[in-house]
Amino acid sequence: MRMYDIIAKKRDGGTLTRDEIAFAVNGYVAGSVPDYQMSALLMAIYLRGMTDEETAQLTDVMAHSGDMVDLSAISGVKADKHSTGGVGDKTTLVIAPIVAACGVKIAKMSGRGLGHTGGTIDKMESVPGTRTALTQEEFFRQVNDIGIAVIGQSGKIAVADKKMYALRDVTATVGCIPLIASSIMSKKLAAGSDAILLDVTVGSGAFMKNLDDAIELARLMVSIGTAHGRKVAALITDMDTPLGHNIGNSLEVAESMAVLKGEGPADLTEVCLQLASNMLYLAGKGDMPQCRAMAEHVIADGSAFDLCCRMFAAQGGDTEVLRDSEKFRKAKYSYSVCAKSAGYITANDVECIGNASVMLGAGRAKKEDPIDFAAGIVMHKKLGETVEAGEPICTFYADDPALFAPAEQMYRSGLMIGPDCPPAMPLIYARVTKDGVERF
Amino acid sequence: MRMYDIIAKKRDGGTLTRDEIAFAVNGYVAGSVPDYQMSALLMAIYLRGMTDEETAQLTDVMAHSGDMVDLSAISGVKADKHSTGGVGDKTTLVIAPIVAACGVKIAKMSGRGLGHTGGTIDKMESVPGTRTALTQEEFFRQVNDIGIAVIGQSGKIAVADKKMYALRDVTATVGCIPLIASSIMSKKLAAGSDAILLDVTVGSGAFMKNLDDAIELARLMVSIGTAHGRKVAALITDMDTPLGHNIGNSLEVAESMAVLKGEGPADLTEVCLQLASNMLYLAGKGDMPQCRAMAEHVIADGSAFDLCCRMFAAQGGDTEVLRDSEKFRKAKYSYSVCAKSAGYITANDVECIGNASVMLGAGRAKKEDPIDFAAGIVMHKKLGETVEAGEPICTFYADDPALFAPAEQMYRSGLMIGPDCPPAMPLIYARVTKDGVERF
Repeated sequence: MRMYDIIAKKRDGGTLTRDEIAFAVNGYVAGSVPDYQMSALLMAIYLRGMTDEETAQLTDVMAHSGDMVDLSAISGVKADKHSTGGVGDKTTLVIAPIVAACGVKIAKMSGRGLGHTGGTIDKMESVPGTRTALTQEEFFRQVNDIGIAVIGQSGKIAVADKKMYALRDVTATVGCIPLIASSIMSKKLAAGSDAILLDVTVGSGAFMKNLDDAIELARLMVSIGTAHGRKVAALITDMDTPLGHNIGNSLEVAESMAVLKGEGPADLTEVCLQLASNMLYLAGKGDMPQCRAMAEHVIADGSAFDLCCRMFAAQGGDTEVLRDSEKFRKAKYSYSVCAKSAGYITANDVECIGNASVMLGAGRAKKEDPIDFAAGIVMHKKLGETVEAGEPICTFYADDPALFAPAEQMYRSGLMIGPDCPPAMPLIYARVTKDGVERF
Repeated sequence: MRMYDIIAKKRDGGTLTRDEIAFAVNGYVAGSVPDYQMSALLMAIYLRGMTDEETAQLTDVMAHSGDMVDLSAISGVKADKHSTGGVGDKTTLVIAPIVAACGVKIAKMSGRGLGHTGGTIDKMESVPGTRTALTQEEFFRQVNDIGIAVIGQSGKIAVADKKMYALRDVTATVGCIPLIASSIMSKKLAAGSDAILLDVTVGSGAFMKNLDDAIELARLMVSIGTAHGRKVAALITDMDTPLGHNIGNSLEVAESMAVLKGEGPADLTEVCLQLASNMLYLAGKGDMPQCRAMAEHVIADGSAFDLCCRMFAAQGGDTEVLRDSEKFRKAKYSYSVCAKSAGYITANDVECIGNASVMLGAGRAKKEDPIDFAAGIVMHKKLGETVEAGEPICTFYADDPALFAPAEQMYRSGLMIGPDCPPAMPLIYARVTKDGVERF
């Protein structure tokens, strides 16, 4: 078998066999397939597509390119979730404790932020002392003891995906539904959970800019997971505006804790309850109304917040900041971005918001960049709300006041104020299960 | 400017600007654009195509990536030809002396063979003593003195094309008309001749498998050359069967000399006369009938053959073998491939013939492979001819008799004998000039 022939076959629109996919992917990991051949294949896949069967085989080959985590040493049903990313996407820190408080085990690996999107692991590390690198023994013991642990993804999970993603990132082959689906699902399959809920974001701040693409990605990921014997469903959620008000690591942790205390913003609370209910449903805890009631109950009685604190404490974190967010270290400077005219906010591009927060120090432009946990943005006026001229739209936080001007320029470049109220967007557009698509 | 954005633009079907093309190509030559990004761009170009304007810009950027040969020190009109390649394609050694004998200067650089196609430089070197690497001073002096020199292509011509072609060769992006056109024309423009005749082969042994693709390639190359102020035309010639009977280096030189002596096979002689006439026409030597008469005349009076001998002698070659081909070193062994049944030869795949000759030692599978100048094939029965069972179809020549069995298997894999005479194919399908396509 020759890599040349595999590239040529896909270039001409052919369907690759399992053996051909394995030859390419495993050869790339081993170094016998050079990066210039893999990038040619990835571009051919981008432009020619892959069948569902090819995508499922690619996912399986990538999952098996690294460790396949065996969670059988943890009793009971294990549930996982994945979000395709966005700005101010802080749902994991709310949902995981809710689900665990309802008796479903959470043994979860999460990622770090890059570019305009944040990552759960960075947010967790904004809580002083928190360790996100546990040994497998510590990880399993913590889940068995208290029902929940969230740690950084091991470098040994889906190693082919890691190497291929880095190549896609520099060859303009990221935004391809079969490649996105196989990348996400290879990691989820390798991470070992029984029930997997996918949060597929759609909108200006998401990979998927339109609903049809988001539904197609969800459908493909659900079909791959189902074919591998997992319980999988997806919610299509809105990322035309960030959930809640806060963007930035400790700012987002504070807002997540507010939801767990029953004091969070309505939009974030509602999306978290729906995601949590669906995870509980996939884990077999009852019908949808029962699962929703359970999720609401563990917020109301404080048990989800309590479990979240226990998780952070088990991982070395100082839970004082969770109980009282005023105790988080504050940025040295703040700055208000004010409306230049009165009207409705008719556009507030999420990528611009995310990029502005990166410029303030809350995220990374490059993998090696340090993060300022206290930096970020608090939005006072969101898409569709009215403002007066001179009224603060948002507040920036940073340790260096020189960062405010470029971040403001970036924020304003996606902002429009006009006379007409834009149409209201739903929080959740659709639910995708192995049985089909349910649009809301 | 970022290579990422250039790849993404072409991936999405956009049209690249001159600056973007120059950024990619010059960056690739300089090493600032890595091969994995260039291969992604090449695959995107393969699948998305390029406009004529983009192709012309790419050609110009590639031509200027190395030396632009200035032939103004050579007086008179300089003519060049290029064949898109084939098996037993020995026309250059016939045409160049004919044209030069008619008073048009030939200052030509040629290539070596790779895979199933041969190269003029290898054929020339089968004449003992022949030097194909001259200094520019020697090259110019010889053209000024005797009117003709054919040398190996300098490594400094179109260096971007050299590097990009090597990458295309291993990433399945060779067979793309805009990339083929720009590769060929960048070298022809850099080589400096005023009149350029293109021999675009079509058929089982050629890059272009069908007439429409061949005409499109010809049209594109003619338009690029014309835009650069050169006189350019193309003939579309048949490569469903090799011209003449001989395949292999000294075997092909012998057959070429036979044509120059007026004793060559009819098909090869006719194609050479047509190519030579067209070159003379482009060089302004008269109308087509006049040019044809001139070409026939320099064969009839021996002046073309005489000039060919003077060229080889000037480059150090032993012209004894040109005068008497029996003096070429002979292969140690010969072997007849015989018909297993009677009938018409209905298929005789040219790539199989070429590959068989490579297996006998006449060509290279890899660039580094040595060549056996005496090895090759003499075809006794060609496509459309009748054979009796047991009658020799061709004779193989090699220094190692162990090579015959695998070469025979390769040759026979493309051979079919049947009861019905296949339709006769024209030698030349069409002529493409800046004014349009003339089909024959």
